[in-house]
Amino acid sequence: MERMKTLPFDRDFVEKVAQQHPTPFYLYDERTLRRTARNFIDAFAWNAGFREYFAVKANPNPAILDILRTEDFGGDCSSLPELVLCERVGITGENIMFTANNTPAAEYIKAQQLGAVINLDDISHFNYLEKHLGSLPELLSFRWNPGNLREVQSVIGNPVEAKYGLTTEQMFEAYKLAKQRGVKRFGLHTMIASNMLQPEFFRFTAKTGFELITEIERQLDIQIEFFNLGGGFGIAYRPDQIPLDIHRVGADIQEEYDNAKMSLKLCTESGRFIAAECGTLITRVIHGKNIYKRYVGVDACMANLMRPGMYGAYHHITVLGKEKSPPTETVDVVGSLCENCDKFAVNRDLPAIEIGDLLAIHDAGAHGYSMGFQYNGKLRCAELLLQEDGGVRRIRRAETLDDYFATL
Amino acid sequence: MERMKTLPFDRDFVEKVAQQHPTPFYLYDERTLRRTARNFIDAFAWNAGFREYFAVKANPNPAILDILRTEDFGGDCSSLPELVLCERVGITGENIMFTANNTPAAEYIKAQQLGAVINLDDISHFNYLEKHLGSLPELLSFRWNPGNLREVQSVIGNPVEAKYGLTTEQMFEAYKLAKQRGVKRFGLHTMIASNMLQPEFFRFTAKTGFELITEIERQLDIQIEFFNLGGGFGIAYRPDQIPLDIHRVGADIQEEYDNAKMSLKLCTESGRFIAAECGTLITRVIHGKNIYKRYVGVDACMANLMRPGMYGAYHHITVLGKEKSPPTETVDVVGSLCENCDKFAVNRDLPAIEIGDLLAIHDAGAHGYSMGFQYNGKLRCAELLLQEDGGVRRIRRAETLDDYFATL
Repeated sequence: MERMKTLPFDRDFVEKVAQQHPTPFYLYDERTLRRTARNFIDAFAWNAGFREYFAVKANPNPAILDILRTEDFGGDCSSLPELVLCERVGITGENIMFTANNTPAAEYIKAQQLGAVINLDDISHFNYLEKHLGSLPELLSFRWNPGNLREVQSVIGNPVEAKYGLTTEQMFEAYKLAKQRGVKRFGLHTMIASNMLQPEFFRFTAKTGFELITEIERQLDIQIEFFNLGGGFGIAYRPDQIPLDIHRVGADIQEEYDNAKMSLKLCTESGRFIAAECGTLITRVIHGKNIYKRYVGVDACMANLMRPGMYGAYHHITVLGKEKSPPTETVDVVGSLCENCDKFAVNRDLPAIEIGDLLAIHDAGAHGYSMGFQYNGKLRCAELLLQEDGGVRRIRRAETLDDYFATL
Repeated sequence: MERMKTLPFDRDFVEKVAQQHPTPFYLYDERTLRRTARNFIDAFAWNAGFREYFAVKANPNPAILDILRTEDFGGDCSSLPELVLCERVGITGENIMFTANNTPAAEYIKAQQLGAVINLDDISHFNYLEKHLGSLPELLSFRWNPGNLREVQSVIGNPVEAKYGLTTEQMFEAYKLAKQRGVKRFGLHTMIASNMLQPEFFRFTAKTGFELITEIERQLDIQIEFFNLGGGFGIAYRPDQIPLDIHRVGADIQEEYDNAKMSLKLCTESGRFIAAECGTLITRVIHGKNIYKRYVGVDACMANLMRPGMYGAYHHITVLGKEKSPPTETVDVVGSLCENCDKFAVNRDLPAIEIGDLLAIHDAGAHGYSMGFQYNGKLRCAELLLQEDGGVRRIRRAETLDDYFATL
């Protein structure tokens, strides 16, 4: 059965916003963001010390990060600009999890300055870190790549092909080395899913992680103080998908935690689950075209939202003001980029669309703006925040020609 | 048999450059660019009035465009920033072919101001153009989408699924309307290939285009003054691919031209063929990693060159200073972006690589820098030009944190 994909605003409201801010633009809904954030944290409230580190790459807008900070979120960073963004909104210290790979020295140095939790991606980074930081930090975490686990392969492809993390064998070696070199506090991290809607998967990740932690602690006589389960919590982009029940996930993990007699803090680093649904890309229809197919041309393009063009990802589309009209035509919704993949939807059934209509492209709050490029001279659009008080605030301006030419 | 993929510089030279300009950076070779440009034009020299309009989106650096301008190239533009770029380097008037799709009014207005050739992508743009420009231009071109041609389907997929152009039937209607409304001069454009290495394909495009033009001229009693065959001229990214013989393509088209008793100017809009081979992405090895596979980590990432990560495209890699060393290991060459597709090569046989080595990623001069994004807080790198006189000039600076934060 299909769910209704709803929006927190209607055509009249968006038309008013569009009088101030030319389309296309992102419109983020603060209420939705806060509600999702609270719901997520609530699912893990049974674990004292639980912390969600928002994956900054999903939505690196400071206004979004600042809202999440007030919801007691940390930041999951994997580059220097992401560290600086967190710093600017007041997310610092161990509220930052720095999980980079193939990491340059400057990024480790900045992470240390901020007091971030450093999560090493490779055993060779030990010496690299010591060399560039002068000494190892008191707290160190390691990223585990579980490799050839059949259960994982079946759902997300083969971690053996992933560039991330240490092998199981190397994990033991890493904690041993860390202990020898004076590291006092330890964490463990893994991240093996993306946009996963099957709750069993997270139970499995927790269970295998708890087993590894128990064995490392036993063999090396150390205590691991947190387990970062990573992200991968999916959202239902399509109306016919069943949303992930995050409370079920939390309860499953609690059961495994109790079974394994664990006593540590859990962490997650979700981006999509937290931010995707609060963000909508608003775009106006500027052309209609009838050739071998029917096309609806909008003023946004792939530069604003890459996922449909890059992956063929589904994003639900609502024709504002026609929410209750039945679909009457099958169209491709296209941007103006000079690439044939620049399509927000292919063979989509929609109500009759006229030039001037506003389209709302749903679930664009994560990996939306942040993945945009300027290919073909396309400029990235503005981001607006619909605040809890009903006001609309511009939280990023649209790019101009000057931005495009800035490095020349 | 494999060709050698050579470079116009050696390790010592690039190390010297890297002392001035930190890696990663693009290094374009002016000699290669000019040689390729001349070779291309020479293949069509038999056609009086032939013009190549360089596809600006392939490499929108003004220094590159300026070199091509001096080689008598025009510019193929499909956005406002691309029009402005051409204007700034002195490519104006009918040396600009404006071939956009789903085009906003502001772009048509700018194209008209510059005196560019306007190439309409849809019959509905007639009224749109007249409304926004006040009148139709004296010269108008139309983009033809040949639709369900079996010969085309077999090599590039189905134009029926492409958003571009007018149907064959609409083409007749368009020229008829244009003539009625006072348009005096006419062009015809098509573009149905991408990175094509089979010369027969271009002969076929020319032949079908000539047939259509002949029929339009006969039925409507007009004269079409140019036929823009589009681009799609491929390059041999892999050493085992046979490069496209552009002189063979030119001669084939000449034969079809003579057979069809044509008398018009031919145009092309190649980007890749002209610019890909002159550009190299230089990056330094910063990490090595041995887990379930062996990884070589470099200081460039997908933000600098998307094609391998986005499409799985092959780019040849030379370890500078080890050009003659046989391959001894199979590695993935990876960047630091927090996406597992951020790999410049997968299972590539290379000579033994040490940290500090410089890698040259070949054929990156087209759709390289221009497709880069800032996802994950990654910044785009500098572009350098190795001039004919042997000097190295920076033609674009690397991005800084301030650029990343500019719209906040």
